[in-house]
Amino acid sequence: MKKLFNSKDRMPDDMIDGYVAAYPDIVQRGNNPRVVHRTRLRTKQDKVALLIGNGCGHEPIAMGFVGEGLLDANVVGDVFAAPSSDLILEGIEEVCGEAGAVLLISRHEGDVINGNAAALMAQDDGLDVRPLLMYDDISSAPKGQESDRRGAAGTLFIYKILGAASESGMGLDELVQLGEAVRAETRTLGAAVSPGVSPLTGELMFTLPDDEIYIGMGVHGEPGVSRRKVGPVRDLVAFMVDELLEDKPIPANTPTVVLVNGSGGTTMMELLTIYAEVNKLLASKNINAVSPMIGEFSTTQEMGGFSISLFTPDESMLQYWQAPQASPHFPQIFSPTEST
Amino acid sequence: MKKLFNSKDRMPDDMIDGYVAAYPDIVQRGNNPRVVHRTRLRTKQDKVALLIGNGCGHEPIAMGFVGEGLLDANVVGDVFAAPSSDLILEGIEEVCGEAGAVLLISRHEGDVINGNAAALMAQDDGLDVRPLLMYDDISSAPKGQESDRRGAAGTLFIYKILGAASESGMGLDELVQLGEAVRAETRTLGAAVSPGVSPLTGELMFTLPDDEIYIGMGVHGEPGVSRRKVGPVRDLVAFMVDELLEDKPIPANTPTVVLVNGSGGTTMMELLTIYAEVNKLLASKNINAVSPMIGEFSTTQEMGGFSISLFTPDESMLQYWQAPQASPHFPQIFSPTEST
Repeated sequence: MKKLFNSKDRMPDDMIDGYVAAYPDIVQRGNNPRVVHRTRLRTKQDKVALLIGNGCGHEPIAMGFVGEGLLDANVVGDVFAAPSSDLILEGIEEVCGEAGAVLLISRHEGDVINGNAAALMAQDDGLDVRPLLMYDDISSAPKGQESDRRGAAGTLFIYKILGAASESGMGLDELVQLGEAVRAETRTLGAAVSPGVSPLTGELMFTLPDDEIYIGMGVHGEPGVSRRKVGPVRDLVAFMVDELLEDKPIPANTPTVVLVNGSGGTTMMELLTIYAEVNKLLASKNINAVSPMIGEFSTTQEMGGFSISLFTPDESMLQYWQAPQASPHFPQIFSPTEST
Repeated sequence: MKKLFNSKDRMPDDMIDGYVAAYPDIVQRGNNPRVVHRTRLRTKQDKVALLIGNGCGHEPIAMGFVGEGLLDANVVGDVFAAPSSDLILEGIEEVCGEAGAVLLISRHEGDVINGNAAALMAQDDGLDVRPLLMYDDISSAPKGQESDRRGAAGTLFIYKILGAASESGMGLDELVQLGEAVRAETRTLGAAVSPGVSPLTGELMFTLPDDEIYIGMGVHGEPGVSRRKVGPVRDLVAFMVDELLEDKPIPANTPTVVLVNGSGGTTMMELLTIYAEVNKLLASKNINAVSPMIGEFSTTQEMGGFSISLFTPDESMLQYWQAPQASPHFPQIFSPTEST
C-alpha cells in the first residue's frame, strides 16, 4: 500500500499526534488519547458542548473542525469505523457540563448505533446529551424517506451553524431545533470518477470503466445509484442540480449556500469549474448563491469526485454560517455585499 | 481523460469564472479576462502592488491567493504554461500605481523569461516594477547555487509575508529586501509516490514502481533526483529533514515555521502524520516549531506526494506570517502562545 503511514495500527493516533502538535493553542488530547477537544473549553461552565464521534479517514471533516465557533470535541474512531459507545461516552463525559451536549451523528449504521448508545448511557449518568442525526444524501433513499438517508458533506452546515449558535449562548433545546431546521434545508448529491485506496486493505475501493461516472457514491465507497458516461462537466452538473431541485425545489430569490466538496483527488480547478456551472444554473432560475464553500472537506481518501450541496438558510442561519471561527482546516466563509 | 472539465481550451477560463463568481466581494476579473484582481484595490492610491503571473494547474496557489493581506492580482496562464509577457504586462498596468509593484516569479524558465520581459516593458512605460525571483527546492541545484533552484511550495512564505507587509504600508525597496530575506530563510524538499494526470495530454505525468518513492520531484513532474523504497513514513521524513538541515542548519531555539504541502492526491491524515514526525525531529534538536501550515496548497493535479518546507523567520517576518488575511483558499495561521 503506497500510503504515507508508519503502520496500519497507528494511523489514527499518528494523525492526532500531528493535529495537536500543530495547533496546541486550539486543540489538545483529552484523558483518553482518542478524544480531541478544545484547549480552552467553556463547556464545564455555561456552554452547550458540541461534539462528534466518527470513524476517521475522511479528513479534514473527521478531524479538523474542533475550535472556537465550531466543535468542542471530536472522538476519533478507527479508519472507516465508528468509535465504540464506551469511547464516545468518555468523550461526552470529558466535555459535557450542566448546559448539556449535542452529539452530532452523520447517519451511517455504526455511528448511529454507537452514538445513540453512548447518549443513553450519558443520560443515565445524569448528563443531558441529545443525539442529532444528520442526513442529506438524496441518492440514498427516496423523497419522503429523508430520515433514511445517509450523511454526506452537507452535514458541515450543521457543524458550523450549531457551532456559532452554541458559542453565542444558545441553549440545548433551541440548538437541537436549529440543527433539525438546518437539516431540513440541506440536500446533497455526489459523483465519483475514480476510486481511492482503502488504508485498511491497500486495495482500490471500487472499480469503474474509464469512460463512466458513478452518481450517488457513498463516503465509504458504497455503490452509487446510477452511472453516466463522461462528458462536459456542465452536463453532469446540470443533471445533478436538477435532481437536487426536484428533491427540494428552491423558489426564486431565495439565498442559497452552495457547497462544492471534493472527494480527495479532485483539483481545485475542477471544483471551481463545477461551482461556476452551479452558479450559472441557479442564476438562470433567479436563485441567489451566497457565501459558498469550495474545496476538499469530507473526503474518501484520494477518490476522484465531488458532491454538490444546496442549503437554503433563513437569515439567522446565514449569520451563523458567516460568523468567524477559529478551527484549523475550516475555511473562511465570505459574505458578499452583493451576490451575482 | 477523466477530469471534470468542459473542454481543454476553456479550463483556465472556467476556473476563473468559478472563482470570481464565488467571491465577488474579494476578487473580480480585470479588463483582460485572464487578469484576476482584488475587488477593492488600493494600489492606484498608495499601496505597492503584489502580483503573480504563472501557469495554472497548481491550484490553489496559482489562483486562490488574491485578497486583502495577500496578493493584489494574479495573471493566469494556460495549464502548466507561463502567461505571455504581453499578458503579464497588461496585468501590471491594470493594478500598478505610483507606489510601484513587486512581480513574484517562481523560478521556472518560462515564468522567468516572460516575467522579466514584462517587468522591463513596464519599466519602459514608467512603472516601477521589480521582479522578485523565488526559489527554495534544494533538490534542483546544489548548495552554494541557490539562485539556480526551482520555486516550490515554500514560495508561499513570500506571498504571505510581503502581502501583509505591503498591506501595512511598506515601500517598494524594503519589500524587495524583505522578500529576498524570506527566500534566504526558506528551504523545501518534495517527494512523490504516485503520478497525476496531465490535463494537457490525458496521460499520467510519470511512472514509478509500486514500491518506490521519488525524492525531489518538480511541480510539473520534472524528474526527481533519487528514489527510495516505500517504508514507514517516519524514515522518509527523517531523511528529508536531515537533507533540509544539512542544506541550511537551524540552531537550537530558533522559531521555525513548517509547511507540509500535499501534492494533490494526498490525504490530510497522511499530511498530519508527516507533520507529527517533522515536529518530533525538530523538538529532538530543540528547534521550536511555530504556526505551521498543513494542507494542499501548491499541487500538481492529483499527484500523490508532499513537500516539507522549513522557514526560519525573524520576529517581524513571523508577525507578518501570522497576520490575518482575507483570501479564499488560504488557511488561517494560528499563533500558539506556547509551542511544543
